[in-house]
Amino acid sequence: MKLFDGGRAPNPRRVRVFLAEKGIAVPLVPIDMGALEHRKQSVSSRNPLQRLPVLELDDGTILTESVAICRYFEELHPEPALFGRGALGKAQVEMWQRRMEFNLLSCVAQAFRHIHPAMKEWEIPQIPEWGEANKPKAVEFLRLLDDELGNREFIAGDSYSIADITGLIAIDFMKPARIKVPDECANVLRWHQAVSSRPSAAA
Amino acid sequence: MKLFDGGRAPNPRRVRVFLAEKGIAVPLVPIDMGALEHRKQSVSSRNPLQRLPVLELDDGTILTESVAICRYFEELHPEPALFGRGALGKAQVEMWQRRMEFNLLSCVAQAFRHIHPAMKEWEIPQIPEWGEANKPKAVEFLRLLDDELGNREFIAGDSYSIADITGLIAIDFMKPARIKVPDECANVLRWHQAVSSRPSAAA
Repeated sequence: MKLFDGGRAPNPRRVRVFLAEKGIAVPLVPIDMGALEHRKQSVSSRNPLQRLPVLELDDGTILTESVAICRYFEELHPEPALFGRGALGKAQVEMWQRRMEFNLLSCVAQAFRHIHPAMKEWEIPQIPEWGEANKPKAVEFLRLLDDELGNREFIAGDSYSIADITGLIAIDFMKPARIKVPDECANVLRWHQAVSSRPSAAA
Repeated sequence: MKLFDGGRAPNPRRVRVFLAEKGIAVPLVPIDMGALEHRKQSVSSRNPLQRLPVLELDDGTILTESVAICRYFEELHPEPALFGRGALGKAQVEMWQRRMEFNLLSCVAQAFRHIHPAMKEWEIPQIPEWGEANKPKAVEFLRLLDDELGNREFIAGDSYSIADITGLIAIDFMKPARIKVPDECANVLRWHQAVSSRPSAAA
């Protein structure tokens, strides 16, 4: 198999961090998203949505969507469990994974895509007012998350999970999106420090 | 357990259709979202994000997020499998579930929330330009989906799955959002007819 990878973009990194946590090595095919290579034949023939990452299996089967690719590897290599254990544990990881995705990562991505000058060719039309509207939404969610992280070590409970990976890439994405974690969110900052110091964060 | 339900809204319906497909009965606590009851204590004490549905287990444990609630029931009652079978099958359902969610349901929801006058108190600030920008995105995705549905019966393959449920609620949500399935998308229309005629669609 091979993984068409998009470098620094959040979703490609999400899969690389996941694989690093699992200790799985997959051959990478680097795609230069800065040069819009993901809109060329090598990607668009595999994913008409022209998004990365894309996993191609040895028989040519294509999987797209970062979380779907992660789930494939979770099923093949269940340990360490990054999608939770048991009915309730799996549901709680899914709940927090979605909360991190819809209430944080998505808001940060909208702010970045609708405000950053480099995104003019990516997001058509760019609507700066919508980008700005997302910044306070992200910060409001961080305050809620801060309350939650007062009671536990990781986003979805006492174990590291894919919800932590989504949170890590969302918070790191806040820098180019020019959104800051409020200083008083001490629990979020402590958690971010902890997940950033894991070797997987360098993936 | 009991399910705090939001009536006609898309996400509460998503869980009810899922439960109907599984043949599971869960006591419902109706919440009148039109009267903004989901912002009152009974919901916000259980879900600080003030969203529905919310599942409360007998020991008081709370699960939110429609897909997380569905996954909980999938784990407890695996048949019929609505999240796929096997590593590849589960990943393909996840892939299509996410595509339906991010490229269709989310676009329809943004169009509705940012344009419909009734949403003024829900979406602050309402940005009609952003709502309008989502309509062609939804239609463009439907054309891609139409190509896919030329080769198979359901969204994620030969079996009905949660991706079909997300697709059903997204397409039905297009009516109040004032987006139309293009007449030439015959495969999408055939599929929508088929999933709408299942008894679960009335849930």
